[in-house]
Amino acid sequence: MNEKENQKKLPAVYKRKYVRRKPEQQEISAPEPKKEKRESRKTPVKIIPLGGLNEIGKNMTVFECSNDMFILDCGLAFPDADMPGVDIVIPDFTYVERNRDKLRGIVLTHGHEDHIGGLVYFLKKINVPVYGTKLTLGLVDGKLKEHGLSGKVQLNVVLPRKTIKMGCMGVELIKVNHSIPDSVGVAIHTPAGVIVHTGDFKVDFSPIDGGIIDLARFGELGSRGVLALMSESTNAERPGYTQTERKVGESFENLFKKAEGKRIIIATFSSNIHRVQQIVNCAEKYGRKVAVFGRSMVNVISTAIELGYLKVPEGIIIDIEMMNLYKNEQIVLITTGSQGEPMSALTRMAMNDHKKVNITPQDFIIISAKPIPGNEKYVTKVVNELMKSGAEVVYEAMYEVHVSGHACQEELKLMMALTKPKFFIPVHGEYKHLQKHADLAVDVGIPRENIIIAEIGNVIETDGVKMSVVSQVPAGRTLVDGLGVGDVGAIVLRDRKHLAQDGLIIIVVGIEKSTNEVVSGPDIISRGFVYVRESEELMVDSRNILINTLNSCSASEFKEWNTLKGKMRDALSDYIYQKTKRSPMILPIIMEV
Amino acid sequence: MNEKENQKKLPAVYKRKYVRRKPEQQEISAPEPKKEKRESRKTPVKIIPLGGLNEIGKNMTVFECSNDMFILDCGLAFPDADMPGVDIVIPDFTYVERNRDKLRGIVLTHGHEDHIGGLVYFLKKINVPVYGTKLTLGLVDGKLKEHGLSGKVQLNVVLPRKTIKMGCMGVELIKVNHSIPDSVGVAIHTPAGVIVHTGDFKVDFSPIDGGIIDLARFGELGSRGVLALMSESTNAERPGYTQTERKVGESFENLFKKAEGKRIIIATFSSNIHRVQQIVNCAEKYGRKVAVFGRSMVNVISTAIELGYLKVPEGIIIDIEMMNLYKNEQIVLITTGSQGEPMSALTRMAMNDHKKVNITPQDFIIISAKPIPGNEKYVTKVVNELMKSGAEVVYEAMYEVHVSGHACQEELKLMMALTKPKFFIPVHGEYKHLQKHADLAVDVGIPRENIIIAEIGNVIETDGVKMSVVSQVPAGRTLVDGLGVGDVGAIVLRDRKHLAQDGLIIIVVGIEKSTNEVVSGPDIISRGFVYVRESEELMVDSRNILINTLNSCSASEFKEWNTLKGKMRDALSDYIYQKTKRSPMILPIIMEV
Repeated sequence: MNEKENQKKLPAVYKRKYVRRKPEQQEISAPEPKKEKRESRKTPVKIIPLGGLNEIGKNMTVFECSNDMFILDCGLAFPDADMPGVDIVIPDFTYVERNRDKLRGIVLTHGHEDHIGGLVYFLKKINVPVYGTKLTLGLVDGKLKEHGLSGKVQLNVVLPRKTIKMGCMGVELIKVNHSIPDSVGVAIHTPAGVIVHTGDFKVDFSPIDGGIIDLARFGELGSRGVLALMSESTNAERPGYTQTERKVGESFENLFKKAEGKRIIIATFSSNIHRVQQIVNCAEKYGRKVAVFGRSMVNVISTAIELGYLKVPEGIIIDIEMMNLYKNEQIVLITTGSQGEPMSALTRMAMNDHKKVNITPQDFIIISAKPIPGNEKYVTKVVNELMKSGAEVVYEAMYEVHVSGHACQEELKLMMALTKPKFFIPVHGEYKHLQKHADLAVDVGIPRENIIIAEIGNVIETDGVKMSVVSQVPAGRTLVDGLGVGDVGAIVLRDRKHLAQDGLIIIVVGIEKSTNEVVSGPDIISRGFVYVRESEELMVDSRNILINTLNSCSASEFKEWNTLKGKMRDALSDYIYQKTKRSPMILPIIMEV
Repeated sequence: MNEKENQKKLPAVYKRKYVRRKPEQQEISAPEPKKEKRESRKTPVKIIPLGGLNEIGKNMTVFECSNDMFILDCGLAFPDADMPGVDIVIPDFTYVERNRDKLRGIVLTHGHEDHIGGLVYFLKKINVPVYGTKLTLGLVDGKLKEHGLSGKVQLNVVLPRKTIKMGCMGVELIKVNHSIPDSVGVAIHTPAGVIVHTGDFKVDFSPIDGGIIDLARFGELGSRGVLALMSESTNAERPGYTQTERKVGESFENLFKKAEGKRIIIATFSSNIHRVQQIVNCAEKYGRKVAVFGRSMVNVISTAIELGYLKVPEGIIIDIEMMNLYKNEQIVLITTGSQGEPMSALTRMAMNDHKKVNITPQDFIIISAKPIPGNEKYVTKVVNELMKSGAEVVYEAMYEVHVSGHACQEELKLMMALTKPKFFIPVHGEYKHLQKHADLAVDVGIPRENIIIAEIGNVIETDGVKMSVVSQVPAGRTLVDGLGVGDVGAIVLRDRKHLAQDGLIIIVVGIEKSTNEVVSGPDIISRGFVYVRESEELMVDSRNILINTLNSCSASEFKEWNTLKGKMRDALSDYIYQKTKRSPMILPIIMEV
């Protein structure tokens, strides 16, 4: 594919969605079939997603060529309702562990948890150099400290447009806009061709800081020939363009005016430094001091100030302890808890459980975030409680106090039109997002057969001519609960869910082994089943059922404790279900005396 | 307040939001203070909400005057995530039980679960006459049959504009539009004045069947003088008007054309009979047969056909077993599962777990509903799975395949402008909805001091002149789990949540009472904690900790088993937390030998 031909095609592809053209005029961005014959097969490259497909979060992709391998991002996901007690979910690292000799390093696109949250767990297994922009690595450094890895890992700050050598592959960082500064996509220069991965991105023509996404470089790459585009799909269902972050600043301006005389409390994502910057700017303009609440908010803001990503005029930020020296109308609180997280600062304020902040009708509260699916009820609860204290509460549904950090449909199409990839792999999203993104790609002119909707663990191989899923490697989720990584699996979760549904009944029996005589019990202990004091009859009857069951057992059955346990369990289970339509976990314990 | 004055005021109040007027011209719908002196205090009426305030669901309100009392609606709510294992939630009936002698009957506004779902549980305690429109009571009758109450309860069908005598009060039904036919609001004629309760309503000027909401009667009442308006607040946050149900029919038309050659599957709420009617109409027009899936869908559709609320041309509905006789393009399936309920027909189809329906690329699936808060993830999961089978899936976010059944802000204001109440009590909603609705009332001209945002259990008393919360009666939630009503309370739920979070460790020790010797154990059994085979060391160490603890106990401590249990629990809990940062429930069991 030569450059000249490509340049001619660019406007055609780009225009297609906007100008109505007759079908016969339609052009596609992929090279015409006849040319393929002339293309020579090259050293194959493998793309192996280990997270982020058919799910939201734990983004991680392995790129492999000859004897070299690197990882792009290593994120975490938050547990679903069917994973009780689990703190976070990280990718299954088995495949990389088995091929550790090939691993040259890890490249990070930005500092969000779903891209860096699994890193410390990975580094504890395999310590390799980590590459990324300054802020991203600043945030990683904070995590390394927490996990006692500080100074033990090689962190390499890389500038956009610079290329990291990963054996036979080169990884070039390309600036993008997103809801955290210093975000990048990458162009992976491989023997088989250039693979572009957008990371998380949006197009913001008036970003708060750090410049516009490097559309020119994406275009240059497209013009020279991109083998494959991997593009994020989070907002693939949303038409149009994502609004600029600056829009939120305008809303803040209006709300600061409206809140005159009141204390302002703003909850947002700690990592959204541009949003924090806009709050600081408003505070300065309206003569307010800023107090910062919530551990992650304090951490991120200090890192961002230290590294120069947040510009705070001297004296604007005050210590929480100094708040009392100021009147309500002289204060803005910035806090965590925009998702209604139960332990967050805002939730504790709402529940009258915060030591320093007491919500009153003199508070004007802005929740500058959108509830992540699954968190809607938590956020609603916090809003209700804040309102009950008389505060005015502004949240996403009402005013423009939040914009997304992800590209909507027109931006996604723009990315395709710029990079003009031969193959397209939608990434970062549930199946419905990937599917919708694939449909957009077809609209833009990428042939359906050149689009791969993959799953984690798929090995996608390309030799520069063809691309397909050739095999499968281990992939899945590793659950982190407290200090345990991977020790909570399907059986433990099944038991937890069972216990949560209907509780537990323990049967204790003491048996004299020599005589096969019941010398103690059967006793019944229950937890999470019924309020025992009000269910005495049920308990007495249960015990009688067990006594009858034991009496009916033969001497040989008494020697087989598993049989005995099974009989007690079945008899009690049947009785309890018949009486209550519930199926508590029943645990018979036989003690030899 | 005479009628003439009121009629003069109506346009003014109504116009106020649309015509910019000078403040001094502002008029309010409440009578001017000077008139109050002439008004005489009347026999007081009590309004006691027992459900539906500061929550979604389990709507129930008690009205009481002298020696008479009646109940308006008796609904259920669905359990929150913090109520594991609970099937449904119903109101606490204590107050009514204590005053059962006064109770004259129950009036129902419509047949949705959040208005009738608690009824059978109530009737099992107190059997009183039930009043409502034909369809509502038809649906109630189905529930009575399920609970073995058929024929034992007096059901009285009442037409709109007719009044039910409840001792010294009269309850007049007034037709409203809603997402189920035969919905009504009520005007309660009491010695103290007229109280209007809207029930659930919207204003639909082109309803599918049954006529437009009786705005004229609401206006007539307002014109004659309404003491208090209780109006539903579900959509109080949403500006504008709710769209007509007919809009969905138009979308169906377009989608039926788009789905040519494919099988169509539509999931919706079984109770939305007008929606089902529109599907049937489309099926007829496009020459398709209709097959019905899901128990509640089958039940509601048969009741609706039987009572004349659903008009189905002969031969359109076919038995599921006959589906194979038709081609894909000749079939529409109507199914439950629009909320992604795990056991519903649509979910089972999505999970390849349905005996009769296998999803393929030849399916065109419409989810004609909006996820209720908390169900978003379930619906998304179903959409993803359906798409993975290659089906085309249309859901609420993409096309106009659903409209709300509840009034938006302009309709809520219209209701206030028509009824011109002296007092206003927003009902049916979380605090944020009630607050927003109260703000709308202030906009319309109702004085803030005449608005009461109440809580369940509040006794709101009015003598026709004043209205205020005067006392509190027992109110809350009763949990239904299987056959148990009320036997799952705070302690049981706390245990279930604890068990779900970190699982369970049981310690079993046998002690010879006479010698205070440990003759068996300590043994450790765990469930939902860790995968034991991979945590042998932890288990061995735990046992050693317990042995040491027992060894360190004095003879006197050995006699106090509670002390002994406490010591074992504390020692093991500390060790486990230190090693795993988890806090499983620890249950020490001592068996006397």
